[in-house]
Amino acid sequence: MDLILPLPDDFHIHLRQGKDLVNYAQSAMQQFGRVLAMPNTEPPINSAESVKKYKEEILAAAPNLEVLLTFKLNKNYSEQELREMQKNGAIAAKYYPLGVTTNSQDGVAKIEDMYPTIELMEKLNMVLCLHGEEPGAFCLDREKEFLKHLEKLCKTFSKLRIVLEHVSSAEAVECVKRLPQNVAATITVHHLILTLDDIVGDSLRPQNFCKPLPKLPKDKEAVRAAVFSGNSKFFLGTDSAPHSLEKKECLCGAAGVYSAPVAIPILIEEFENENKLDLLSNFIAGFGADFYGIPRQAKKVAYTKKEWQVPKTIDGAVPLKAGEVLRWQK
Amino acid sequence: MDLILPLPDDFHIHLRQGKDLVNYAQSAMQQFGRVLAMPNTEPPINSAESVKKYKEEILAAAPNLEVLLTFKLNKNYSEQELREMQKNGAIAAKYYPLGVTTNSQDGVAKIEDMYPTIELMEKLNMVLCLHGEEPGAFCLDREKEFLKHLEKLCKTFSKLRIVLEHVSSAEAVECVKRLPQNVAATITVHHLILTLDDIVGDSLRPQNFCKPLPKLPKDKEAVRAAVFSGNSKFFLGTDSAPHSLEKKECLCGAAGVYSAPVAIPILIEEFENENKLDLLSNFIAGFGADFYGIPRQAKKVAYTKKEWQVPKTIDGAVPLKAGEVLRWQK
Repeated sequence: MDLILPLPDDFHIHLRQGKDLVNYAQSAMQQFGRVLAMPNTEPPINSAESVKKYKEEILAAAPNLEVLLTFKLNKNYSEQELREMQKNGAIAAKYYPLGVTTNSQDGVAKIEDMYPTIELMEKLNMVLCLHGEEPGAFCLDREKEFLKHLEKLCKTFSKLRIVLEHVSSAEAVECVKRLPQNVAATITVHHLILTLDDIVGDSLRPQNFCKPLPKLPKDKEAVRAAVFSGNSKFFLGTDSAPHSLEKKECLCGAAGVYSAPVAIPILIEEFENENKLDLLSNFIAGFGADFYGIPRQAKKVAYTKKEWQVPKTIDGAVPLKAGEVLRWQK
Repeated sequence: MDLILPLPDDFHIHLRQGKDLVNYAQSAMQQFGRVLAMPNTEPPINSAESVKKYKEEILAAAPNLEVLLTFKLNKNYSEQELREMQKNGAIAAKYYPLGVTTNSQDGVAKIEDMYPTIELMEKLNMVLCLHGEEPGAFCLDREKEFLKHLEKLCKTFSKLRIVLEHVSSAEAVECVKRLPQNVAATITVHHLILTLDDIVGDSLRPQNFCKPLPKLPKDKEAVRAAVFSGNSKFFLGTDSAPHSLEKKECLCGAAGVYSAPVAIPILIEEFENENKLDLLSNFIAGFGADFYGIPRQAKKVAYTKKEWQVPKTIDGAVPLKAGEVLRWQK
């Protein structure tokens, strides 16, 4: 049995840099036609020059990947700088609160400090992508506690397009639904299928540890309901975030799930299980493009129903569902 | 400044077996006068002969440690067998639900299946120690969901002394308080000071991963309130559970905190911070002995206020607060 899908978009991916990037970008290219690459490299992507170079680095590794860029909103930019970054391929800024996830030690303590740039972004029709977690709150409450900032942004910049990234809680799903059409959310594959049980329920499973944390069963159900209702505000951003085996399993305990190589096969299964395969194309290659204001993907890709076992590591990182059997493949 | 305390009792400790046991037992002997050793070795302690041998093995390693034994309630025993185990030093049985923690793959699916033995234990005045987690429930609800079994046991065996081990939730604390005087609870050092934030809040910290999971701030506060109220139903059982560095940090993700070497210094700090040092002796060497019906410890031990840094590993295992500075030592 074959399934013909539009070549998927991934509106949230970490391709890393240097030697690692080559493998990660090639793996992404095997799965996606377009990706929005996150800017939390070291040093971060935060200038017209670094946007340009990062795009070139990715394209050198994965020439057939259509690369959309972000820059890190960890300082204010002039209109001139924003226009230059835009010209070089940046369509969105990524906001990281201070210290909430990988390479966010240069994150922002107070989002209001970034309002001058955000106002310019609204004017230039750029998208603001939010890592929506409140530093210092209890781990399961961090996303919920962040929502007040989203609501305030929304009121202050009524024309700004905002994406709340990787929503993981019932409260965030409800908030995005309630806010106007210029507010959307990405949903990862892992938040569709994991809860806290999959990290600390039985033995500790570092490969499932990520930010925001997968939460309670009710939260997973809310995320699933958003996806399987076909609401156009919710689209795929895998937040695929490879860490080397060493970083994941050692004392450093890095946060991030490497899902790019398995994302689409898992999504096909999930949509099939819910008897919602008709909604899959919009989720992986429709609503996101519409929201970002870019043409929908025209290319197609075929998946076949044929079991395969996910390797224990891919590109030196432990992938989501490592060792498990999936039933669809390209 | 010196602090003179009764030599502490630990009513819940894992000393492991074989080569590892030597170090762990000696470390325990440096901290405690008496310990209640848990029976989840491989194979488990579940016969008069294995009780006797385990006691001898511990005493060979730590001759000055007073060793109280448990046996594993993973099958029914005859009155004769119970009497023999009692004669060999077993004062309690430990009940593990199926699959909830380390070496519980031989645990019990239905506690009612053990009622014949529990009835005999009541008659022989033995104590029942419960790992109170309901298999299959969501990780944060497992203890709460187990309480129905505790309540039923309590009604069915009104004279049986029961210890709910390592209480970690507000609901369990409330339940133990509400039930009659023959129901008590141990409290670990780590559940006094950790929440889920200390495992998955920032980077992943495998050294703090244990069962039952440290939970929400409100749960930690309830556990602390039970201890600092001086309620005689709550006494120290560290559940110190060393795993080799390898087992803790690798994919296997073993559950357990190694607290024995640091337990008393941490407790002194915590009681001092709460301005409740007058309640410490009862918690570490009073209420437990009373509940178990053994004489209170007569020996004393002196602690000095002098800072020291907890080593990164002790006995090849990562201790609680590894690398941190504590302010009391022997």
